[in-house]
Amino acid sequence: MFIEKNFMLESDIAQELYHNHAEPMPIIDYHCHLDPEMIAKDHIFSSITELWLGGDHYKWRALRGNGVDEKYITGDASDFEKFDVWAHTMPYTMRNPLYHWTHLELSSIFGIDKVLNAESSREIYERCNSKLAYENFSARGLIKMSNVEILCTTDDPIDTLEHHKSIAESDFGVKVLPTWRPDKAMAVENVGDYNIYIDKLESASNTSIGSYAELQSALKNRHDFFASLGCSLSDHGLDTFYAEEYTQIEINSIFNKVRGGKGLTPEEVLKFKSAMMIDFAVMDHKKDWTQQFHIGPIRNNNTKMFNSMGADVGFDAINDLSCAAAGHKFLDKLASSDLLAKSILYNLNPKDNEVLAAMAATFNDGSVAGKIQFGSAWWFLDQEVGMTKQINTLSAFGLLSRFVGMLTDSRSFTSYPRHEYFRRVLCNIIGDDVTKGKLPKSELAFIGQMVEDICYNNAKRYFKF
Amino acid sequence: MFIEKNFMLESDIAQELYHNHAEPMPIIDYHCHLDPEMIAKDHIFSSITELWLGGDHYKWRALRGNGVDEKYITGDASDFEKFDVWAHTMPYTMRNPLYHWTHLELSSIFGIDKVLNAESSREIYERCNSKLAYENFSARGLIKMSNVEILCTTDDPIDTLEHHKSIAESDFGVKVLPTWRPDKAMAVENVGDYNIYIDKLESASNTSIGSYAELQSALKNRHDFFASLGCSLSDHGLDTFYAEEYTQIEINSIFNKVRGGKGLTPEEVLKFKSAMMIDFAVMDHKKDWTQQFHIGPIRNNNTKMFNSMGADVGFDAINDLSCAAAGHKFLDKLASSDLLAKSILYNLNPKDNEVLAAMAATFNDGSVAGKIQFGSAWWFLDQEVGMTKQINTLSAFGLLSRFVGMLTDSRSFTSYPRHEYFRRVLCNIIGDDVTKGKLPKSELAFIGQMVEDICYNNAKRYFKF
Amino acid sequence: MFIEKNFMLESDIAQELYHNHAEPMPIIDYHCHLDPEMIAKDHIFSSITELWLGGDHYKWRALRGNGVDEKYITGDASDFEKFDVWAHTMPYTMRNPLYHWTHLELSSIFGIDKVLNAESSREIYERCNSKLAYENFSARGLIKMSNVEILCTTDDPIDTLEHHKSIAESDFGVKVLPTWRPDKAMAVENVGDYNIYIDKLESASNTSIGSYAELQSALKNRHDFFASLGCSLSDHGLDTFYAEEYTQIEINSIFNKVRGGKGLTPEEVLKFKSAMMIDFAVMDHKKDWTQQFHIGPIRNNNTKMFNSMGADVGFDAINDLSCAAAGHKFLDKLASSDLLAKSILYNLNPKDNEVLAAMAATFNDGSVAGKIQFGSAWWFLDQEVGMTKQINTLSAFGLLSRFVGMLTDSRSFTSYPRHEYFRRVLCNIIGDDVTKGKLPKSELAFIGQMVEDICYNNAKRYFKF
Repeated sequence: MFIEKNFMLESDIAQELYHNHAEPMPIIDYHCHLDPEMIAKDHIFSSITELWLGGDHYKWRALRGNGVDEKYITGDASDFEKFDVWAHTMPYTMRNPLYHWTHLELSSIFGIDKVLNAESSREIYERCNSKLAYENFSARGLIKMSNVEILCTTDDPIDTLEHHKSIAESDFGVKVLPTWRPDKAMAVENVGDYNIYIDKLESASNTSIGSYAELQSALKNRHDFFASLGCSLSDHGLDTFYAEEYTQIEINSIFNKVRGGKGLTPEEVLKFKSAMMIDFAVMDHKKDWTQQFHIGPIRNNNTKMFNSMGADVGFDAINDLSCAAAGHKFLDKLASSDLLAKSILYNLNPKDNEVLAAMAATFNDGSVAGKIQFGSAWWFLDQEVGMTKQINTLSAFGLLSRFVGMLTDSRSFTSYPRHEYFRRVLCNIIGDDVTKGKLPKSELAFIGQMVEDICYNNAKRYFKF
Repeated sequence: MFIEKNFMLESDIAQELYHNHAEPMPIIDYHCHLDPEMIAKDHIFSSITELWLGGDHYKWRALRGNGVDEKYITGDASDFEKFDVWAHTMPYTMRNPLYHWTHLELSSIFGIDKVLNAESSREIYERCNSKLAYENFSARGLIKMSNVEILCTTDDPIDTLEHHKSIAESDFGVKVLPTWRPDKAMAVENVGDYNIYIDKLESASNTSIGSYAELQSALKNRHDFFASLGCSLSDHGLDTFYAEEYTQIEINSIFNKVRGGKGLTPEEVLKFKSAMMIDFAVMDHKKDWTQQFHIGPIRNNNTKMFNSMGADVGFDAINDLSCAAAGHKFLDKLASSDLLAKSILYNLNPKDNEVLAAMAATFNDGSVAGKIQFGSAWWFLDQEVGMTKQINTLSAFGLLSRFVGMLTDSRSFTSYPRHEYFRRVLCNIIGDDVTKGKLPKSELAFIGQMVEDICYNNAKRYFKF
Repeated sequence: MFIEKNFMLESDIAQELYHNHAEPMPIIDYHCHLDPEMIAKDHIFSSITELWLGGDHYKWRALRGNGVDEKYITGDASDFEKFDVWAHTMPYTMRNPLYHWTHLELSSIFGIDKVLNAESSREIYERCNSKLAYENFSARGLIKMSNVEILCTTDDPIDTLEHHKSIAESDFGVKVLPTWRPDKAMAVENVGDYNIYIDKLESASNTSIGSYAELQSALKNRHDFFASLGCSLSDHGLDTFYAEEYTQIEINSIFNKVRGGKGLTPEEVLKFKSAMMIDFAVMDHKKDWTQQFHIGPIRNNNTKMFNSMGADVGFDAINDLSCAAAGHKFLDKLASSDLLAKSILYNLNPKDNEVLAAMAATFNDGSVAGKIQFGSAWWFLDQEVGMTKQINTLSAFGLLSRFVGMLTDSRSFTSYPRHEYFRRVLCNIIGDDVTKGKLPKSELAFIGQMVEDICYNNAKRYFKF
């Protein structure tokens, strides 16, 4: 058996911390990309291929790297053909997080302890599919069996949130809350797309948007609407922070220019985004929301594949821009006006770990424990080495004890074992410290509590869920 | 007992190296920020709160991160209230270096083996305070009990160094030497502050400063004065290296402009600082001093707190500028004219570890063993992970055996256990290598000598103390 | 004995993987800087000093760092004096890769198990020299005893490749292939040197070069010639990637300007190099070659030493430019036109590990397993920590199983133990994973195969040797 009880738990204390403190805690998945419609309609998956390979760009990258033709990845091969190609690729992913994630999912969701490879392909395909036919393997079933208490999806201001309403009115029991992700509302670099978006925002907010003030008013309208459905988090996907100097007059005229269909200079784009980021932050602060900043990707790098398949299909990577000066300037502007909301800073490039961890600690003001968080290892960094670096950096630069912990950031209904993975890594690190005398054994009661806090209580308190 | 004899020493060889070779060596603290007046006057601390929490921005950051109100940090709460809040916060700092530093200080300075937390708060407060009443816990007493042989403070060119004189004339026994830190003499970005500073420099040097030549002459006057009191180190706090092209005519006219009260362009500031850095370096080279470059902070990021409290109160962080091209150009300019003094390159952003370690190795010229040093892990990096990276990078890129070792960089009279901490980490790393066969057991005599060298002899020889 | 059988192999499984799977595999050294003339003429080394210290800038840097005068490094000291100085320095290199490399070379090439230091200096000097007198310690003998099957040198387009021809016609048995390294053909920043080079290219290609089209045609002529001698790899030494927008008309006129003896602006240099990189890439793609990009050095930083000794003498270091945006743009331009050849991306600054590993994975297209490779730890990173980071980053971001593995990148005929070193590190990492249950013991047969693939089979298949 590969994923045995003490998988990745190398000391007795790590095992004790995990089994007695981490494992029993429910999951608060405060940032994911699950499709609310699938939850609302309680989607039944036609096969393990749909569930696992239908939209998972992590697996697609691995398949492409293993020399598999696109036909068997996003093409018209049959469900079994696609699964079988994945099974053949599986051994070649050893040491990649996919190898662990896949076997954790097989083990804890499907109760299958076999290693997936060419030999076991057919058997595992059929065993998974026969499970998926049961009701408790529907979208909702998968969430419930994972002991999820609350999850936050990621939503555009123009979304109707109709599925969130319908879920809230149902007897599902798991809270499914929207998150405000207004990236498109400031994506002025593409004039055509931007105006199409603003037109949609006009409809969604039932207002007309002919000036920056009207844009803000329309967004405020939607922000209120999100709040009315329980939203208390925002999220921003950025290549880096923006903190250019600007005047309100400049911003008004930049908006008029782009709304009039004219392209902007890079300097105008930067000023506009800098202003929008401040205005979004002020909205969040007024409602005591938590704002999240995911910085660092470089997206859609393969133009040919983007033209044929669109975004989020496995051709994103890691940028290497500076972020320290702008990040500090942005947060300082808010802090100096007493307008800085609770914030979580996530980086995709690990070169920024220490910069963001120190930046977060610099804007704590004593009002809330762990007010500015250095966020968990994300996307490409969501693996043992990446998590370990995040945990060690956070520990050295701030307070691990106040960390709000893990999230899946995932589009997949079977990704909850990533919380298990994080918890095993966390308990292993702390257990190792206690075992080696770097933390006092006499304080084990506090340490157990700290593990429970990081796994669950901190998020519950911090987000006021 | 938490801090037991073999704390952080995981192998028999590590223990042997530490206890027989590292532990007995005196401390040369060649870079710190202790207040010479407190040493001269042999300050008695009124309480552990004054000693520990009166000026320690590391602890203040932790308290703010733990949700503590400023009243209990830098405000008007009572001494015990402040200490008690720190005791309550202590468990929440687990895995932060503060947890280790605090317990090392309790153990080796106060002889207290209890873990500090809410329960032990009152008892530890009282035990520490009763110790502080004894003479051997005065400023000088604390230094002497830590087995310090030499310490170098950090001083401005306009300082009178009166306290250094008075210490030298006393029977203290520990050498207390000044360090030349002329950051303000090139801080031309703020015209008003700069001219106030230059006016003070006029008084200190008893000259008038109306031209760049007169500025250099006044500084040379002070440099000579520092040397007369035993100074043989300089230090520069920089965001990155400066190495812009300039002519002497340009520099003269830039100085005239700023001295005339006019603001400079960023390009002029950069040229001026580039020139000053070269001129300072030449002064140091003429006297066979060692120049230190601390690069990488971004300072005073919280304007509101800066306006109310000033600098160095816990709102500094890590910048992420490039440093390779300018650093090499600066050192090359000096090396090519045979004017490169012994130098120590410190970085605050660990992304620069390899860049600075390789840069240092590139300018060794065979004249002095370890002439250009990759400096020890500093400020935010002064913890186990940071030290380990510094030691491993230095090892891989240069000669660990020639390393001048640890310094406290501290404002605190109880920070000497950081040398102990460094020595434990160092011995643990080397001991692990020997245990695993990566270094030959047959060479243990040399290895023991190497540990002694890094802890003490290298600094003594290198700085010619 | 220092280098014992299980040196750096800390678990039973690591030992089994190394001895049964890694150690027996022949070496494919697909990137090195060996001098083909020395192989063609089967050079006999006059002494261990010539072999070890005649051109090894790694050792020179260590000697300079240890305070050794240049006389004993590159000066006129006697062979024994130079060796003896190296022997004295050896213990001071503990934890530097030189300490391991040197003892691995002593052990596996010379059969000497003694530790090199001041005491053993004379004995080891004499034992090595007496071995070098035998025929099997000639240039060819050293290669053959190292079980090398194929090696690729690094050659300029103007090289006659006469020595490659003569080796191919000999009975040597080891394939020695050229690699196309056209750095000088785009080094337009120095007008004088560039025109001298283009004149030489005219002779080599027997064409006249008065336009960019003629330059391309001359290079194509040489590219064909390289191919005719078995070349199937190119290599580019770059500070970062270049991907500036340009038009063919601009490039033609930039070439005319520089060929006419006029200096270029930085913008023109960047455009020209961007164009050349694309044109080189297209040539490689047409022939199904593999292109290598070595990015990150900052070279010849010590002008004084460069003026007296030239390039590659130990004064190069690590740059810290951004590479993500340009790298993605460059690869995208090729991928979008279906002109992207197999590629290997190497970085010298470890801050770029994750950026390049993610970049590589973004341009895999399923046509070849591991088509875009994140290259092995290189130059300053060619040591245990650097290799471990490269292996862990590749594992987490891509497919370690498809890695083409190690190369020496060396000028030295005794550097093959670096393959042994890499293999020990690799087996130790994988063995540790299996031992700790992070990889399933049930899959040991596949894992053994994977080790063989990384050590040999992957390179053989990938390069179609």
